[in-house]
Amino acid sequence: MGLAIALLTIGNELLSGDRQDTHTQRIANFLTPRGYRLQSSVSVPDDENLIAEALTYLGEKNHVVVVTGGLGGTSDDLTARAAAKAFRRRLSLNEEALSQVRDRLRSMGREPQAYHEKMALFPQKAGPLGNPAGVAPGFQIRWQETEFLFFPGVPAELEAMLLGALLPRLQTLHPGEPIEERRLQIFGLPESQVEQKLEGADLPSEVEVGFRVHHPFVAVKLTARGGDAMYQADLAEAEALKALGDRVYGRGDARLQQVVADLLLGHELTLALAESCTGGMIASQLTDIPGASAFLDRSGVVYANRAKRSWLGVPDDILRSPGAVSKECAQAMAVGIRRTAQTDLGLAVTGIAGPGGGTTRKPVGTVFLSLATPDGVRTKEYQFKGDREKVRAMSVATGLDWIRRYVLSRQCDL
Amino acid sequence: MGLAIALLTIGNELLSGDRQDTHTQRIANFLTPRGYRLQSSVSVPDDENLIAEALTYLGEKNHVVVVTGGLGGTSDDLTARAAAKAFRRRLSLNEEALSQVRDRLRSMGREPQAYHEKMALFPQKAGPLGNPAGVAPGFQIRWQETEFLFFPGVPAELEAMLLGALLPRLQTLHPGEPIEERRLQIFGLPESQVEQKLEGADLPSEVEVGFRVHHPFVAVKLTARGGDAMYQADLAEAEALKALGDRVYGRGDARLQQVVADLLLGHELTLALAESCTGGMIASQLTDIPGASAFLDRSGVVYANRAKRSWLGVPDDILRSPGAVSKECAQAMAVGIRRTAQTDLGLAVTGIAGPGGGTTRKPVGTVFLSLATPDGVRTKEYQFKGDREKVRAMSVATGLDWIRRYVLSRQCDL
Repeated sequence: MGLAIALLTIGNELLSGDRQDTHTQRIANFLTPRGYRLQSSVSVPDDENLIAEALTYLGEKNHVVVVTGGLGGTSDDLTARAAAKAFRRRLSLNEEALSQVRDRLRSMGREPQAYHEKMALFPQKAGPLGNPAGVAPGFQIRWQETEFLFFPGVPAELEAMLLGALLPRLQTLHPGEPIEERRLQIFGLPESQVEQKLEGADLPSEVEVGFRVHHPFVAVKLTARGGDAMYQADLAEAEALKALGDRVYGRGDARLQQVVADLLLGHELTLALAESCTGGMIASQLTDIPGASAFLDRSGVVYANRAKRSWLGVPDDILRSPGAVSKECAQAMAVGIRRTAQTDLGLAVTGIAGPGGGTTRKPVGTVFLSLATPDGVRTKEYQFKGDREKVRAMSVATGLDWIRRYVLSRQCDL
Repeated sequence: MGLAIALLTIGNELLSGDRQDTHTQRIANFLTPRGYRLQSSVSVPDDENLIAEALTYLGEKNHVVVVTGGLGGTSDDLTARAAAKAFRRRLSLNEEALSQVRDRLRSMGREPQAYHEKMALFPQKAGPLGNPAGVAPGFQIRWQETEFLFFPGVPAELEAMLLGALLPRLQTLHPGEPIEERRLQIFGLPESQVEQKLEGADLPSEVEVGFRVHHPFVAVKLTARGGDAMYQADLAEAEALKALGDRVYGRGDARLQQVVADLLLGHELTLALAESCTGGMIASQLTDIPGASAFLDRSGVVYANRAKRSWLGVPDDILRSPGAVSKECAQAMAVGIRRTAQTDLGLAVTGIAGPGGGTTRKPVGTVFLSLATPDGVRTKEYQFKGDREKVRAMSVATGLDWIRRYVLSRQCDL
């Protein structure tokens, strides 16, 4: 069954509601793909007794206990003191740790001060672990049958020590179980349908299938363990790709805007946008990507009808009836922005994001998309569900997905 | 010292890294302002033994243990079984819980099925708590000196039961310590300077001061406890406002875009934007606000020089030299968008967000802002620090803050 590993995170802010604990997920995401599993995670405030109690409890139940936070030179850094109490050992100045602190300070051009000594006060028989990204060193202690590893709570310092100190220690205790993960990013299918399609697919039964919704996207995680994990994971991924088809927009951590940017750059296509209900969100997502200026010419965020007229050339007739939220208007916007900007593609969105503005014939969630290309114009009406934020997010993702599908289909035609 | 309260959250996904635990912060944020404090929070996977062990441990150390997750009709819902094991009681069908399940299902127009019975299998002597927002009822158990409350893990169901079941139970055990919180939202001062200014201010010494950075903003939280909490909190807030002046853009959960939208609506001012390096982010933040069409006329996201020329009328001379990232260009963009859109205000941003595009004279982070108003144009150069995301976020917030300050100064002049 491998090692029983537990985590203890320390900090008042974790229990007061002021801060979300992110260390548990960070450390779990470090351990899981390396074949180790967290068995429990405990958070306590900066309180010597509560820290000591938690250390004793976790020590009784686990082979390894990882502790983060509360190292350092200030008075609310109580971890070393609590550990001394839990393990009934005296605190004493650790000479090796002290020289680690002094070396780090000097390498940063700083002078060691008296209060830095506190950073080297460890329970007896502790082994200092240094700190490649900060000053206060971590340390390790063996107590009864359990290995305790104490790390700083600052995320960058912790990250550096997971790789440099935790992993080597775990590997000497027990080799991680081989594990392979594959992730697929999906747009355009609700979670239930993704699940259904994968149930109908021929996935190896040993492969664990997990789902995660990050609206409006769904991610599938395929996890294989054991000696042939690589082979099983590859097989599962191939079957899942077959079952989900072009709803999969990317693998791993792929983001839709990055996929779209890469496609436009790879095909040397330029794009201009005309956004009404998305209010600049499509442009702002695409310009997240460094180098977006190579494919994005401009976006007209056209709330006022005057703007639709003068910037996009939408005819007054259309704006009067059927109005700014209509198939006709979306099409005129897409054609207009493409003509004005002289780009290969013109994408337009107009709709009613809510909460106000809906009517019986055009309820909140009514959104028209239009894509003008060298091959013609395509325009479609959608009814998106949910609040303003969800309607806008669906509109943005659908627009980006249209571009992705257009460029891919063009590729196939060639 | 009040009640010792602990939380146990249950779910494989919390320990595998697939999901961030959000319940701890949610429940802490529910308890803290009501005068209760969480003493520890534990997460374990869907494993009967690990759940039972955690229940026993937390029961020994706390007056109240809140448990979330693992209630329901499927095979990985193990909480009731684990509780029976921990408390050495048999599982039996709770008739009251069963009729709660049946009533809920009927009120939703659904027929009770055989598997729904599992939802009413509780350890003996458990008291069912219903579930106003779902089907599987929560329950409570007294074991030795400790009160255990079991709630569903679905956020909406949990929320409903915190107010309906947890709070009344806590209040009968111990009245919450009176507590008053005040929060101030700040832009334009780094955390260290906010701290310095408050150290120099005349805040009541009993009031706890906390800081939280949510880049590019800083929030200050003032917490007063005890009989005169309200008075102390008001006093502290007044002093903090005096010390921080107009760097405070709002109170409580105020968001800068909402503050700006309210000011524009309140003063019946219209706005148009010309965005280059922010790529539509200012528009998309302002159009988060329902009803933004009443003040936002349009935003031109003008990446290409052609767009700056044709939409904003930026002269070719300027685009050639000093170029698109210059004080002159920013000013021409602001004046141009204000003239084109015929709005009261025109805000323009142009800069180098990075990582590429920097030069010795205009390094990454160089951003020019310009605001054209009926009272004239103001343009300024900034050097923002950090990566692309940070430079863009600082540019957006600075732009919004300029509008806020302009409208406020106008108000004072009247």
